[in-house]
Amino acid sequence: MKTYKLTVMYDGGCFNGWQRQGNTKRTIQEILEDTASCILEEKVEINGSGRTDAGVHAKGQTASMVVSAPFDTRYFLKQMNGKLPEEIKVTEVVSERRGFHARLSAKGKCYEYYIDTRKKQGVFTRKYSYSCPHSLDIFAMKKAALYLEGRHDFASFTDLKEEKSTERTIYKIQIQETEGRVKIVFYGTGFLYHMVRILTGTLLEVGMKKRSPDEIKEILDSKERSKAGFCAPAQGLFLKEVYY
Amino acid sequence: MKTYKLTVMYDGGCFNGWQRQGNTKRTIQEILEDTASCILEEKVEINGSGRTDAGVHAKGQTASMVVSAPFDTRYFLKQMNGKLPEEIKVTEVVSERRGFHARLSAKGKCYEYYIDTRKKQGVFTRKYSYSCPHSLDIFAMKKAALYLEGRHDFASFTDLKEEKSTERTIYKIQIQETEGRVKIVFYGTGFLYHMVRILTGTLLEVGMKKRSPDEIKEILDSKERSKAGFCAPAQGLFLKEVYY
Repeated sequence: MKTYKLTVMYDGGCFNGWQRQGNTKRTIQEILEDTASCILEEKVEINGSGRTDAGVHAKGQTASMVVSAPFDTRYFLKQMNGKLPEEIKVTEVVSERRGFHARLSAKGKCYEYYIDTRKKQGVFTRKYSYSCPHSLDIFAMKKAALYLEGRHDFASFTDLKEEKSTERTIYKIQIQETEGRVKIVFYGTGFLYHMVRILTGTLLEVGMKKRSPDEIKEILDSKERSKAGFCAPAQGLFLKEVYY
Repeated sequence: MKTYKLTVMYDGGCFNGWQRQGNTKRTIQEILEDTASCILEEKVEINGSGRTDAGVHAKGQTASMVVSAPFDTRYFLKQMNGKLPEEIKVTEVVSERRGFHARLSAKGKCYEYYIDTRKKQGVFTRKYSYSCPHSLDIFAMKKAALYLEGRHDFASFTDLKEEKSTERTIYKIQIQETEGRVKIVFYGTGFLYHMVRILTGTLLEVGMKKRSPDEIKEILDSKERSKAGFCAPAQGLFLKEVYY
């Protein structure tokens, strides 16, 4: 038995999310598993570092797989990219220690959210950003972001409370503004279901002056989803990198 | 009667080129004319500065239209963008002098061609660039470009010789290299059918050392299409701006 780690880039707008489903909708996991199984001539299970929702993109999603025997990673990489649809690309395949698991072994993640603030959204970025044609108060957003950094119970910032604990650590939130675009970068141990998108929606409401930055503390304390902001659309979100 | 100039941005990958056709395929001109006719409640003809081929994008295509009476341009712009598919956006509508015609009045044009030189083409730029995974000799390409600047008979650089004259003036060709990307910008009086794409294909062959820069002079002199390079794919090409 041999374990490998894959790094994968995909245009999420073309798929029904990461996770294999029992229906006919195309998912990224399903396509990767089917392609790898075909190349390696054995049934391969591929486990992602986490599930990305339908429409969410990835620049550096990671996944692990355990196969019966070692293989030539360069040859496998070339074969995979030759067979995969153009919206999915495997950018790296590396051998890993026994027991490595893309999700369980992950130490942290980085997500990016792109906001197009121009009056008219550009046609070339429309699938890779969220159009929010407002003048945003970046200073207020940065102030709000400071309340979110650190270890907190993020129960207010998720749409699903099945997990044992809703405590997570956000190491850093960077908010970068360039002409017509705002990019928010989140670094953390891990993120709950919809968490990055609700954090983004809440920060945008602060930017649009619908909320004050100081409200963030109350939202965290309330542990109520209804207190937080809207869930920003999937197409602006990119899973940038997974750390081990 | 009143004349207006429209500036239009579109993702050419979604349409069968600019020009209205007598069949069921979607073209940009057809969609713009149908939308404007619906808003203005009269049959509107919209004339582009030129036809872009199927798959070619535009950041600043221009078009003119003559309508029966003046209208509120801001209201019209808003109505147009509300009704147009998301792949087409009208970025400006301005009143023009009588007799103005987007094609006949044009003084010059700027086109951009994007080449992705990375080993693995990025999934997010795949529709907006041509993948040429080679190390290109930019210096040789720049040298070749110098032979193309100025007034020449570009008969070797077109796939259609219906036009009266194949003489054109190229003011400037800029070749810019950044990590993993080469951008070629063409400024000229006007361009023949497929001309920018064949110029790009020929410059790429110089960059890949399949030709020497000095061959350009012979290609121009020969006036034979077969002497020039390949026609680079449509998806890397953008009509950037039209000058009046």
